[in-house]
Amino acid sequence: MTLTHFDAEGHAHMVDVSDKAVTDRIAVAESFVRMRPETLALVTEGRARKGDVLGVARIAGIMAAKKTSDLIPLCHPLPITKVSIDLVPDERLPGVRITATVRTTGQTGVEMEALTAASVCALTVYDMLKAAEKSMDIGGLRVVLKDGGKSGRYEASSEG
Amino acid sequence: MTLTHFDAEGHAHMVDVSDKAVTDRIAVAESFVRMRPETLALVTEGRARKGDVLGVARIAGIMAAKKTSDLIPLCHPLPITKVSIDLVPDERLPGVRITATVRTTGQTGVEMEALTAASVCALTVYDMLKAAEKSMDIGGLRVVLKDGGKSGRYEASSEG
Amino acid sequence: MTLTHFDAEGHAHMVDVSDKAVTDRIAVAESFVRMRPETLALVTEGRARKGDVLGVARIAGIMAAKKTSDLIPLCHPLPITKVSIDLVPDERLPGVRITATVRTTGQTGVEMEALTAASVCALTVYDMLKAAEKSMDIGGLRVVLKDGGKSGRYEASSEG
Amino acid sequence: MTLTHFDAEGHAHMVDVSDKAVTDRIAVAESFVRMRPETLALVTEGRARKGDVLGVARIAGIMAAKKTSDLIPLCHPLPITKVSIDLVPDERLPGVRITATVRTTGQTGVEMEALTAASVCALTVYDMLKAAEKSMDIGGLRVVLKDGGKSGRYEASSEG
Amino acid sequence: MTLTHFDAEGHAHMVDVSDKAVTDRIAVAESFVRMRPETLALVTEGRARKGDVLGVARIAGIMAAKKTSDLIPLCHPLPITKVSIDLVPDERLPGVRITATVRTTGQTGVEMEALTAASVCALTVYDMLKAAEKSMDIGGLRVVLKDGGKSGRYEASSEG
Amino acid sequence: MTLTHFDAEGHAHMVDVSDKAVTDRIAVAESFVRMRPETLALVTEGRARKGDVLGVARIAGIMAAKKTSDLIPLCHPLPITKVSIDLVPDERLPGVRITATVRTTGQTGVEMEALTAASVCALTVYDMLKAAEKSMDIGGLRVVLKDGGKSGRYEASSEG
Repeated sequence: MTLTHFDAEGHAHMVDVSDKAVTDRIAVAESFVRMRPETLALVTEGRARKGDVLGVARIAGIMAAKKTSDLIPLCHPLPITKVSIDLVPDERLPGVRITATVRTTGQTGVEMEALTAASVCALTVYDMLKAAEKSMDIGGLRVVLKDGGKSGRYEASSEG
Repeated sequence: MTLTHFDAEGHAHMVDVSDKAVTDRIAVAESFVRMRPETLALVTEGRARKGDVLGVARIAGIMAAKKTSDLIPLCHPLPITKVSIDLVPDERLPGVRITATVRTTGQTGVEMEALTAASVCALTVYDMLKAAEKSMDIGGLRVVLKDGGKSGRYEASSEG
Repeated sequence: MTLTHFDAEGHAHMVDVSDKAVTDRIAVAESFVRMRPETLALVTEGRARKGDVLGVARIAGIMAAKKTSDLIPLCHPLPITKVSIDLVPDERLPGVRITATVRTTGQTGVEMEALTAASVCALTVYDMLKAAEKSMDIGGLRVVLKDGGKSGRYEASSEG
Repeated sequence: MTLTHFDAEGHAHMVDVSDKAVTDRIAVAESFVRMRPETLALVTEGRARKGDVLGVARIAGIMAAKKTSDLIPLCHPLPITKVSIDLVPDERLPGVRITATVRTTGQTGVEMEALTAASVCALTVYDMLKAAEKSMDIGGLRVVLKDGGKSGRYEASSEG
Repeated sequence: MTLTHFDAEGHAHMVDVSDKAVTDRIAVAESFVRMRPETLALVTEGRARKGDVLGVARIAGIMAAKKTSDLIPLCHPLPITKVSIDLVPDERLPGVRITATVRTTGQTGVEMEALTAASVCALTVYDMLKAAEKSMDIGGLRVVLKDGGKSGRYEASSEG
Repeated sequence: MTLTHFDAEGHAHMVDVSDKAVTDRIAVAESFVRMRPETLALVTEGRARKGDVLGVARIAGIMAAKKTSDLIPLCHPLPITKVSIDLVPDERLPGVRITATVRTTGQTGVEMEALTAASVCALTVYDMLKAAEKSMDIGGLRVVLKDGGKSGRYEASSEG
């Protein structure tokens, strides 16, 4: 197997997608920010009273989806048609679970956009809580659904 | 405890650091991209022959460190004085381990820059390998060292 | 009435436009920079001799139109097909009147692009004249025409 | 009087500030978005239930302050040390009043940063409400306070 | 002859391409970085052992192609579908020869994207070698092929 | 000799400049756009009547200087304190000669900023004239002066 992002001589290039069909495409990615229970309490209390951590992180993730091709060197620029991000506090983690959904009508898939949105969203949660806890970690970043385009539908196994 | 990124009314703001000292600051963050052994083999073989996945991801991570304040809404712009990124294939993971080091001479810490570098570096590894495997996941993103500035030295516990 | 930029739970999202038709769209926005007569005289004299304030501001406005989706969080990126900006000194204001016209062939309207162009154009006029007068103000920023797309033609009433 | 942004031949340039002192500087700018009472009601109700228009606009304004030198051609890049934005519904307008405060420790003033923040914040309010009303207008954008640096303190007269 | 980038009054504008056909378009541009033989030796040796100057410059050029409409004021944003860059050490120059190829399916040509890629690629080669030699120069930047769209095929004469 | 942009293992990094002195630094770079005499005539006539090619290109070059660290992967972000660009029609070339001057008070030199400004300025001249002539070429891009900082003054020999 060879990697499509390199030519026959091993030089990186942005793959030619000129001949790919313009189709509706969707991708969903997820990630989490794990923290101490008392840090998570700041998030859940804050929603009501002291400041909306999740609301700020959601906006950061949506804006990051639009910067994906500026961040990932060999990624094609795409006319994104939808971005939504769910952030759910989860006391069993404990922490915040993030799910980003991105759609386009274009020539390549949007899994990098969904992953970038979920990633920057998680980084923003970290930024807003880091004065309270430095030992948070971000993980579980993966594609859970990808559809549209020639390669067909991909769904992650549930074990995650 | 209250979160510094919100004012008394719960409105998000960029915290005033005008009165903080300009000092040398350093932060180190790490992350990993986990993949199947045969996907990792494409990385390690590629370094020699077919294309330098890790070299491209390193450049992406370095450039992303410079975009941090553009991505994270309440992050201060900083004159970064150094960025370096180590990428090490690890067959036990199996996958690639990433460590990003960022320095500045400024008024706030650079842990968000180090985390952003490690994060975008991992996303770029994913992008270059996704044709081979969609089930990779990115995790273990955390600050392992932070020093300089008023809050003193922080080192993560080794358990990770 | 509910706002389209929020979902049923009140979370902000970038609205799905995947199913909207790709049509020719146009928007025209206007604004003004109001200043003292002697400041306006610097602009009108400058065009001939000392420096083209309006020429620089026009370029800034055109470039800003292309950054709209980077500035406005929930705005869709669009392939802009035309931007033009008129700047007219008006002694009765006194000041400079700005009209920005933007076209696209896409799935959403371009009124935010026209407003952003008119806005940054006005800010640039302010920037170049601020050493002469700090008390200038910018106002009258509004959409005067929007056409193409499902919601039909909109024209502002003339009273402004 | 000549404009500092042009040289003796009338060519635009970014003024040399190498010899200016590094001092604490502050600027405050204000603007408003005027709308129908029923549109304003969507904002005030939404804060509680359906979506936080003002919270999203605040984040957009803060992020825009950091992009000022990228938008305004002859503006110097500056290490911003604080940004805060107040948004207040005003039923007498009727509409939303915006006040942006920016600080830096640098060689030039930050009035363009404050104006840009107030401007993009207002544009974002417009974007989120435009499905309800196209006839909103943005105005009253001006500097109300500027301090620090050689030119001393400036305060706008109250008449606005 | 008049220049299309100006209207009848001599004001710059972004030309209206709304009515141009969406077609496959390609452009190829070339440039070179000329240096002393001993500097070139650092490049060619480095590929094997000490660091891949050409690999880093290739990534910089590819990413720059995506920023073209952000850099060139009157350039239209375009959905780039392919970028590749060849860098060849040439001992007769002596130096490095660069060829950038860009494709799109859009309404305007991509020669500015190819020229920008070749240009930033050359600047990056300079940056990485400037500690060894300050007297390098960059030249020969020109379009060698342009095809697709109404104006037909253009090929540069071979004399260069 | 080894290249400073690579570590002992040959991995690219952004060099640590934390310990370098903050000093006044200046760099001057030049380039040219060569064209047919009749194309140059469009430029020189246009200044007076049909559109200011050189004025637009000057703004593009100034703005590009501020984007240098975003374009060149291993370049440090710097607080630029001055940018000016001279554009002179030269009938002997025939074409336009460009000289860019950049200053900073920082920890690294600004030759990449001056080269980037001269380069994007030349690309913009090309863009505005390409409808008249596709065979223009850009060359002679080099540093002519660099001063400030530990490595001392560098002046290019006059032969160019």
